[in-house]
Amino acid sequence: MDFDAARSQFPVLERYAYLNAGTNGPLPRSAVDAMERKLAQDRDEGRSGLPYIEEYIAQRQRLREAFAAVLATSPELVALTDSTTRGCQTVLAGLDLGPEDEVVTTDQEHFGLLWPLQASGVQIVKTAADEDALLAAVTPRTRLVAVSHVLWTTGRKLDLARLRLPDGPPLLVDGAQSAGAIPPDLAGADFYTISAQKWLCGPEGTGALYVRDPERLRLALPGHFSGVMYAAGGLEPKPGAARFDSGWTAGVTLAGLEASLACHPEWRYARAAEMAARCRELLEPLVEVVTPPGHSTLVSFKPPGDPKELVASLYERGVVVRDLPGASLVRASCGWWTNEDDLQRLAAGIA
Amino acid sequence: MDFDAARSQFPVLERYAYLNAGTNGPLPRSAVDAMERKLAQDRDEGRSGLPYIEEYIAQRQRLREAFAAVLATSPELVALTDSTTRGCQTVLAGLDLGPEDEVVTTDQEHFGLLWPLQASGVQIVKTAADEDALLAAVTPRTRLVAVSHVLWTTGRKLDLARLRLPDGPPLLVDGAQSAGAIPPDLAGADFYTISAQKWLCGPEGTGALYVRDPERLRLALPGHFSGVMYAAGGLEPKPGAARFDSGWTAGVTLAGLEASLACHPEWRYARAAEMAARCRELLEPLVEVVTPPGHSTLVSFKPPGDPKELVASLYERGVVVRDLPGASLVRASCGWWTNEDDLQRLAAGIA
Repeated sequence: MDFDAARSQFPVLERYAYLNAGTNGPLPRSAVDAMERKLAQDRDEGRSGLPYIEEYIAQRQRLREAFAAVLATSPELVALTDSTTRGCQTVLAGLDLGPEDEVVTTDQEHFGLLWPLQASGVQIVKTAADEDALLAAVTPRTRLVAVSHVLWTTGRKLDLARLRLPDGPPLLVDGAQSAGAIPPDLAGADFYTISAQKWLCGPEGTGALYVRDPERLRLALPGHFSGVMYAAGGLEPKPGAARFDSGWTAGVTLAGLEASLACHPEWRYARAAEMAARCRELLEPLVEVVTPPGHSTLVSFKPPGDPKELVASLYERGVVVRDLPGASLVRASCGWWTNEDDLQRLAAGIA
Repeated sequence: MDFDAARSQFPVLERYAYLNAGTNGPLPRSAVDAMERKLAQDRDEGRSGLPYIEEYIAQRQRLREAFAAVLATSPELVALTDSTTRGCQTVLAGLDLGPEDEVVTTDQEHFGLLWPLQASGVQIVKTAADEDALLAAVTPRTRLVAVSHVLWTTGRKLDLARLRLPDGPPLLVDGAQSAGAIPPDLAGADFYTISAQKWLCGPEGTGALYVRDPERLRLALPGHFSGVMYAAGGLEPKPGAARFDSGWTAGVTLAGLEASLACHPEWRYARAAEMAARCRELLEPLVEVVTPPGHSTLVSFKPPGDPKELVASLYERGVVVRDLPGASLVRASCGWWTNEDDLQRLAAGIA
């Protein structure tokens, strides 16, 4: 698929310099078409009966395989979830962490990870968001290291393989800003939780959780598809990570998700990295860019004035980015679909 | 709204005797239209920027009010969830129940309640599904009574007010087969968890949780909307039950849900009860009906032969009901939209 054909899947890009996949990605036409077809079918044929259920179950399996391909792993290790947050909840509850346990994390985490950590009652040890600081904070009391692969604030990428010591605590990774944006790399991760509505361009309320060893994580928050159906003794966890599926995601949502996961060209990662580099190049003369070069598809920067005002004035000009409250930063998300014109409009709006 | 106009909202009823709202209700045309409009908007305008977020937040508030009306309670006591199961998880985790605690429940519960109970590690005391048996099982060790309002198997309704003793343990109610089907009655319930894709005819993956005293339930599983945004100290729970909102439900789903909740006529409960009574009347000469009269909108019965085979042969004739594995029962769901012809087709298919 050439660039123009690939980009033309996203009608929003005809109108806006849409640079906020870090919140929600552009929706491809194919996903909307698939959802409309499924909606009409649900309306006219109903939402039950054996053929309905069988297709629904088959679609879940196809999606498990599609997510496994995104993450470069095996479908048996992938659960279908509704958010990065749900993945964090599933892992924290399954590890039975409590007030006597210590978790090492960074001071840059999204609340999708931070809030579940806080609610779990563990002792949270926060360090600067770099590998050395994190490793220095790990002690024999540490039960888990929990970090983002790409930090949602600065766009810095962490080296997961370095963070997972052979005899050290397990590693939970928030992949919200990495899955679909940078090449998959689960090396080191015991648990890797992702959203699909961002860089994967799926419907909201979709995601996945990779679990390296499903048998060793307790099933603490079972959902509708977690157990063997109608097992006599009640809860009998399904084999593999499917037991961690978070619930009955709407058939319409699954239909859109399947189309979204299929819309990405082979050259996705190279092109997205190239666009992020080009974005830096254009912004560096204008603002202080805080994202280190070569790390991710986010480009975060400190504008001279008020970030909120800049975001609003860019929006007026058809340029969609976001500010990061508390950090005085503005963040542009560069996808493989981004083009030179999008970036020129951003730069012109800042200048 | 007269009956014919109200019923004509559901295209599926033109084709099938669709009697399975206990799994998923019929989808009204208005919900599909609203979802299609929202999909087109998301595709063409994108899914971020201040106006997008503001409308999304406002819609969540409108839905909280709509659910409060369904449950005859106040919006401050209502959380937006994605399933009955999630409501159970939220309550069990928030009560911090563990292996030393006892929970009294019936031997007829759906796995949406049973599995979370089992996964929580509590000691489960199961009784027959009637008020006397439940009350007799409550001891000073009982930390929670957890039951369905209407049992998904037999369709029996439990008297919640009787089950909640003034100085007794709190009462968690699974309202999957009651909300939207029978008149709201939270009397006695400390927690009442519902699905909206069944009797309320909403998109799948929608529901609500009523919490009588939100300040007294710990926020154990925070989702995207649980806390005050960007609070300096991290997790600062929102006021009221909104803190128990389960996550970022897709805007498309919310759009459909809002239309679905608005599609029901005032006479909904009286008409549904009437249709259930008529269904009994037609089936009693043919099969052993196990649902007690006057209890709910489910009519469960023991067919002479194999329930699975009967369900399949009815499906061939355009009659949609379900079997209940393990119980040798078939279950018909009668909504306010059901008509005499639907029931005659069911009876003819059994005879």
